[in-house]
Amino acid sequence: MITSTTGPQPADFADVRATNLAVVLRFVREHAPCSRADIAASTGLNKATVSSLVADLIDRRLVRETGLTENRVGRPATMLVLDGSPYAAIGVEINVDHVSAVATGLAGERLLTWRRAFSAGGSAGQDVAAVAAIVRRVVGRMARDERQVLGLAVAVPGLVDVQGVVRLAPNLGWRDADIGGDLAKALRDPGFTVQVDNDANLAALAEQRFGARAGAADLVYLTGEIGVGAGIILDGRLRRGALGYSGEIGHVQLDPDGPACRCGRRGCLEAVAGIGAVLGRDLSPAEIPVEIEDTVRAARAGDAAVLAALDAAGRSLGRGVSVLANLLNPEVVVLGGYYVPLAPWLLPAVREEVSGRAIAPEGGGCEVVASTLGLDAAALGGAARVLDSVDSGRLPGGISRIS
Amino acid sequence: MITSTTGPQPADFADVRATNLAVVLRFVREHAPCSRADIAASTGLNKATVSSLVADLIDRRLVRETGLTENRVGRPATMLVLDGSPYAAIGVEINVDHVSAVATGLAGERLLTWRRAFSAGGSAGQDVAAVAAIVRRVVGRMARDERQVLGLAVAVPGLVDVQGVVRLAPNLGWRDADIGGDLAKALRDPGFTVQVDNDANLAALAEQRFGARAGAADLVYLTGEIGVGAGIILDGRLRRGALGYSGEIGHVQLDPDGPACRCGRRGCLEAVAGIGAVLGRDLSPAEIPVEIEDTVRAARAGDAAVLAALDAAGRSLGRGVSVLANLLNPEVVVLGGYYVPLAPWLLPAVREEVSGRAIAPEGGGCEVVASTLGLDAAALGGAARVLDSVDSGRLPGGISRIS
Repeated sequence: MITSTTGPQPADFADVRATNLAVVLRFVREHAPCSRADIAASTGLNKATVSSLVADLIDRRLVRETGLTENRVGRPATMLVLDGSPYAAIGVEINVDHVSAVATGLAGERLLTWRRAFSAGGSAGQDVAAVAAIVRRVVGRMARDERQVLGLAVAVPGLVDVQGVVRLAPNLGWRDADIGGDLAKALRDPGFTVQVDNDANLAALAEQRFGARAGAADLVYLTGEIGVGAGIILDGRLRRGALGYSGEIGHVQLDPDGPACRCGRRGCLEAVAGIGAVLGRDLSPAEIPVEIEDTVRAARAGDAAVLAALDAAGRSLGRGVSVLANLLNPEVVVLGGYYVPLAPWLLPAVREEVSGRAIAPEGGGCEVVASTLGLDAAALGGAARVLDSVDSGRLPGGISRIS
Repeated sequence: MITSTTGPQPADFADVRATNLAVVLRFVREHAPCSRADIAASTGLNKATVSSLVADLIDRRLVRETGLTENRVGRPATMLVLDGSPYAAIGVEINVDHVSAVATGLAGERLLTWRRAFSAGGSAGQDVAAVAAIVRRVVGRMARDERQVLGLAVAVPGLVDVQGVVRLAPNLGWRDADIGGDLAKALRDPGFTVQVDNDANLAALAEQRFGARAGAADLVYLTGEIGVGAGIILDGRLRRGALGYSGEIGHVQLDPDGPACRCGRRGCLEAVAGIGAVLGRDLSPAEIPVEIEDTVRAARAGDAAVLAALDAAGRSLGRGVSVLANLLNPEVVVLGGYYVPLAPWLLPAVREEVSGRAIAPEGGGCEVVASTLGLDAAALGGAARVLDSVDSGRLPGGISRIS
């Protein structure tokens, strides 16, 4: 159904066709293997239209026929599945000390996961050159595998506006930097789109598409790094706010008398439940994984001081999550980053605080879980964002079946 | 454009026609006076289709022709405007000590604004009977004016789930009450839909349609009563959360060492910036308007103690609004209810806190303003919700032009 926010029907028939191609592609993604008749029955498009759309998607090598036939009365139907073998979606995540890159195929299958050392804090120009070098190698690898890149989305820990300009990324030392434009230039017009988004936003998209709670309509992802950010999905879509700055939960004040925060204020969520606060001291990015391992070991061994510290950190984090539960009533809040290895000890306290602090019965049904996507969730989310573009109708150009 | 959340095109042609009727109706609402050619040019629907749709809308008396013609080259066009003279939308707001009712026409013009004493806290059954009596009188009045009621939406201060069941309305003493169903029964199948929603949600819809910032895509409305609730509009739509319990900002804790809250916790927004806290003491609903008048008089006279108290209350409220600014990055936060008469003294402190506490530059562009809709905003929002239903395709049945 066309809703009031989506407005009147598209004015030209090319748009209608692109929209319908995307409808069929999404149907095959969700229901494969399926027949042309299944598509027609479920979408309300007539059979001739479906046949023509499927032929187009086969031409573009987005869909292919399988030998399978449905086991049913009447003429056996040729079944369709996603193809996408000639395509790749790339996501890149820029951190203070490393860059992660992920490439997936059209169905979301992982083609590549890289992590490369990187030292931010030269000029944004130097940083972009370093990132571009990594992207070029990923693109080269895809080319060797005969895959065309559908697009690139870059995750940045900071304020990214709705145009994709990085307004402020304190840990990278960037301000008002058009990283997407600069990267496209450094890649010398690569022939695919380059998008830039906040890391928590992209990680939330990764959860929506690939996570344990994929498909949840109301989901919030919380990054668990030195900083803490939220990616907010409501009614099935990322909600960026008016300028793109939503999700800055790290600087919601939980306690006016709390410890000093890097932002200059006191008692922000980040200052009481960021990974530095969880581990009990300021750490360099390189020290964190080592310290996490030590903490996990001590917690497993039943070290009372460590267990008490994790419980206290979990309570602070739970107070932050309860703000989300009261304000947004999400179905699920996913803890990411370094919260994941510590989740067995954080989650009980977090859940207790949420159910105790949410005004709705039983926390408004809000579950809190640890991410299952690993530390590169934002990079994976970059690939998810590229696939979202394809699913909403930005299809790669047709490839001749003869060539 | 059909988006991925709205799914495939509707399967049957009646749906397509209803959708297109709604598209044309919305176009006339926003662009009247306009011609059939204008509609065709802007919607992409062909002229014959537009003519047929307009004829249908004229039959239903939702649109009418005017004598006006456009001043242009060629054949003069008959201009169209909203009609709706035979229709009314009704909104009702239930409060502890009164019920407000608003009726509007199709274009949103006020037909009636009533406020009737009401004493909640009998059984929900008795309360429903009292509300039904008021609604019957409103419907009777509309019938005398030869207007058919398009629908009724009822605002309740409390947790209302997505099915419209009131899960908890502490001030009314209601729990798990299907007020909508009970009201429809008490009205003996009135021939229009009865919807129930949270008061802050409906007031936000009123702001979106009728307020000084009408049309803002990212807007939050804050009720300013003994309790404080938020209605959250993001990307043009009310966001209710997974179960309908979003917007419970009143019980977001701003200070763990703050004053006790009615909910049993400490330092909730409501306890530090609800209207009782603003006025400095617990008051019965009947006392509040008197006390507000006294406070306004004292503030105007420059009473230093009152000015300091309002500044302090504004700072607390600003801390709450800054949580919204950081998490949701709204374009505007509208203060409603009893905050409105006090706004000249509250707003400077609120704005200062928001710009000081939001991590995005300049508060992420978040403006804070006082509502211009008066104390019955939620009742008006009920009417807005009924009009939203019409705009999204739930049209009243055709009325023959001959009858």
